[in-house]
Amino acid sequence: MAAPVIEADAVVIGAGPVGLFQVFQLGLLDVRAHVIDALPYAGGQCIELYADKPIYDIPAVPVTTGRGLTENLLQQIAPFGAQMHLAQQVATLQQQDDGRFALQTTRGQRFLAKTVFIAAGVGAFVPRSLAMEGATAFEGRQLHYHMPALDSLAKRHVVVHGGGDAALECVLQLLAPDNHHRPASVTLLHRRDVFLAQADTIARVQALRTSGVLRFVAAQITGLQTQGDQLQALDILDPDGDTHALPLDQLLVFLGVSPKLGPVADWGLAMERKQLEVNTENFGTSVPGIFAVGDINNYPGKKKLILCGFHEATLAAYGAMSFISPEKKVMLQYTTTSPRLHALLGVQTPEKK
Amino acid sequence: MAAPVIEADAVVIGAGPVGLFQVFQLGLLDVRAHVIDALPYAGGQCIELYADKPIYDIPAVPVTTGRGLTENLLQQIAPFGAQMHLAQQVATLQQQDDGRFALQTTRGQRFLAKTVFIAAGVGAFVPRSLAMEGATAFEGRQLHYHMPALDSLAKRHVVVHGGGDAALECVLQLLAPDNHHRPASVTLLHRRDVFLAQADTIARVQALRTSGVLRFVAAQITGLQTQGDQLQALDILDPDGDTHALPLDQLLVFLGVSPKLGPVADWGLAMERKQLEVNTENFGTSVPGIFAVGDINNYPGKKKLILCGFHEATLAAYGAMSFISPEKKVMLQYTTTSPRLHALLGVQTPEKK
Repeated sequence: MAAPVIEADAVVIGAGPVGLFQVFQLGLLDVRAHVIDALPYAGGQCIELYADKPIYDIPAVPVTTGRGLTENLLQQIAPFGAQMHLAQQVATLQQQDDGRFALQTTRGQRFLAKTVFIAAGVGAFVPRSLAMEGATAFEGRQLHYHMPALDSLAKRHVVVHGGGDAALECVLQLLAPDNHHRPASVTLLHRRDVFLAQADTIARVQALRTSGVLRFVAAQITGLQTQGDQLQALDILDPDGDTHALPLDQLLVFLGVSPKLGPVADWGLAMERKQLEVNTENFGTSVPGIFAVGDINNYPGKKKLILCGFHEATLAAYGAMSFISPEKKVMLQYTTTSPRLHALLGVQTPEKK
Repeated sequence: MAAPVIEADAVVIGAGPVGLFQVFQLGLLDVRAHVIDALPYAGGQCIELYADKPIYDIPAVPVTTGRGLTENLLQQIAPFGAQMHLAQQVATLQQQDDGRFALQTTRGQRFLAKTVFIAAGVGAFVPRSLAMEGATAFEGRQLHYHMPALDSLAKRHVVVHGGGDAALECVLQLLAPDNHHRPASVTLLHRRDVFLAQADTIARVQALRTSGVLRFVAAQITGLQTQGDQLQALDILDPDGDTHALPLDQLLVFLGVSPKLGPVADWGLAMERKQLEVNTENFGTSVPGIFAVGDINNYPGKKKLILCGFHEATLAAYGAMSFISPEKKVMLQYTTTSPRLHALLGVQTPEKK
């Protein structure tokens, strides 16, 4: 909890497509951004809900996917070196006497930011947690909602809980031939012997069961057996109504994610029906210096479309300049012609004919 | 001038990137659009001013060119079968008693439209015309500002006037080995023996001069020699101050294009400094049913960026629905998930898992 405070011109909350494009537009104005996201990777909804599904309405991109869109945006913002602070949420936000915003994340990272851009979509995608009393005490040590480093699971008895893509892909990764940190055992625990995942993923998992390297248990978790501060086993209830103990060292839980608006609602910003009210000149909220872009904002005519968020992020970047560099006169320049923007983008200015 | 009147739900003025994306967003709402542009091809500024120059700020497109952007947009709107009315400008626009707009183009095409979208950028790109008294009388017959059909120039004495890419590319096309409609002669006429064009284009033209198939004349046009309704020769003044006659059958003039706002200013729409004033809810102008999107509009916070025009076109499409189908309830649907949009786009709806 004692990480140094980061003094920032701009903190972007949310690494979905609009948050990423916010980084780009700030970058064109020579402002470096810090990005915070609850997920352990960039992309937000695009990766979490439709990574491999087609998207047809990104302008000049006849078809892409959530993953393709995210990868292109990451490539586009690469020149601007935004620092990503992932797998953490903004827990608190308070305005200081000097006008800057003090933020602290759930991982204890603190910021003092001149401007804040809330690009939090429908809220933070938070993994559904195990609804079991006392479970939180083991989080990060023996209980994980994201894949931990593979070497931390080497020679351990690992239980993977869930029946979707994330659970099954975790199993495949643990038992992959090139995983040199093999667990002592891997057990897949799901309430029914039915999976909701890509057909080929299911086929590969079934092959591992058949070959005997993966143990499958159909059961529900009914309790935790602990000793001291250690989780030792799960109480499980099988479909026949019998109770067993399932011993383990590490429990990986993949029950899906659900979006949570989280503490944004507590920051004193004008809201209506869970949306932040903004003006359409610069997408500022009711608190000067805090902007809201993408699905989380509302204004007359609002459509919850990614391409609208791109526009909002652009005007917000310009709107933020009076807080970031009040003395600087900001001019609109074009990436096609401006040597200054070419320098920022790290590309060659074409020679004049 | 007697083409049948086209009854249209939507007429889009301008086939630049924003006009093209207007077609896309209308298409997603099941509205077919007619598009009018002064240029003989789609793309607007993107093609006319920076066809081969890089663009870095189209969201999720790390780099493209004016041509690449245009081609991608044309591909994206292909499912919606917009009818293009090119190489003509809207000459008149009047609202009828029934609320619809009567438009007529400079080629005499008439429309009765429920809604009009002005996506005219900085105005229509009109070729700079030959500032020579009496020249207009020959337009379309012996004087051309765009490349005419090659067969109309076969066995004719052709003079190409200009020193830029368009003039030089015209010469190359006329003298290309695969042109089976070779003119009797091709003369390139430019005031100086210096060209402002791509280096390789210049090199190819110089090679044609060296080989003798292309005649080059450095001179200015000072007058037209006519007989009856025929243009017979140009009076030209060479750099030494001498006057000559340059006989010809066909004159192709490429002096560049200049944007002209044109008659838009006469349509009774609220304007300020050559921009159409719009609201940011649906980018409607002061006349209900007429929308303005892209560089031609203005509102608080406006940035003249293509990506902002994409957003404006989107909200304008929704705003137009109350004029096009007042009885219809319009819901926002997503191209990723909506079978209805998939049908409109002509793509398969992915199977549910």
